Amino acid sequence: MMKVYVLRLGHRPARDLRLTMHVFLAARAFGADGVLYSGIRDRGLEERMRRVVEEWGGPFTVEYVEDWRRAIRSWDGDRVHLTMYGMPVQEVIEEIRKSPMDKLVIVGGEKVPGEVYDMADWNVAVTNQPHSEVSALAVFLHELFKGRELLKRFEDAKLKVVPQRRGKKVVRVGEKA
Amino acid sequence: MMKVYVLRLGHRPARDLRLTMHVFLAARAFGADGVLYSGIRDRGLEERMRRVVEEWGGPFTVEYVEDWRRAIRSWDGDRVHLTMYGMPVQEVIEEIRKSPMDKLVIVGGEKVPGEVYDMADWNVAVTNQPHSEVSALAVFLHELFKGRELLKRFEDAKLKVVPQRRGKKVVRVGEKA
Repeated sequence: MMKVYVLRLGHRPARDLRLTMHVFLAARAFGADGVLYSGIRDRGLEERMRRVVEEWGGPFTVEYVEDWRRAIRSWDGDRVHLTMYGMPVQEVIEEIRKSPMDKLVIVGGEKVPGEVYDMADWNVAVTNQPHSEVSALAVFLHELFKGRELLKRFEDAKLKVVPQRRGKKVVRVGEKA
Repeated sequence: MMKVYVLRLGHRPARDLRLTMHVFLAARAFGADGVLYSGIRDRGLEERMRRVVEEWGGPFTVEYVEDWRRAIRSWDGDRVHLTMYGMPVQEVIEEIRKSPMDKLVIVGGEKVPGEVYDMADWNVAVTNQPHSEVSALAVFLHELFKGRELLKRFEDAKLKVVPQRRGKKVVRVGEKA
């Protein structure tokens, strides 16, 4: 099975906490196996994400990488960089899906160094409009997995939502719904 | 043509600036006609979004609503609330698409008042996992429009991206590419 990891570049604690957390959560919810991040190490962020995995299930890993260049270069698989300047996702997704190698999906923050464009096997635009690394990542994964990620079951979840037309219902696994 | 507007609940300037901006940008990029927001009025946010529309095209409107309850109640069309506790998007999207009425897509922030669940015609979950209002909105719109929003042309854009396999190319409209 092809593995998919997301590399978030240039995290700055405090300033980026919520956005990076949303990138991590979207990565997990839409079927990635884990995230790597560079920038400044943020143990609070890692801890938050670990708690989500503990409660809602996994497997899902979080890893800090000090040297993002090396992380990208040494990646054993395909490198996909999400950028509004790249090729439209609808034109390249088939090609990316066909390659059986593991994927590293690279998402930037405010400023992405020019070399990332050269290190990537694909520079992919989810629309050529400005929006968000969170939405770009989610729609990219949704396309990559053809929507099947919506049916993903997480292992060892302690909490599960029971879908409702109105209101909220969350059960602790093991308890009666 | 069915119109789609997004209502962002409970904006708090400073704390939510970037996330609300990402919600607005995702709404625009994935084909919504405009956004409404409640909470505390934030003219800086509105101005930023207006500049995006001026540069990258529209039409796209931003409107502050003081009374979100009234905005939801007086909405002339369908109300879709995005929440991880709702019905799976893949099970209800066809039904939502079939209704020809305009759509108000409601996305919360940290805490959503319980009454929103009752005011909505559909409570929709884009996965029943925790992630982000930005990713939920993008994937919901992507499903609603069946991916056709990726081909949307924006009117009166001053800037346009020319998709590249490597690097960036942005042209001012009217200039030679």
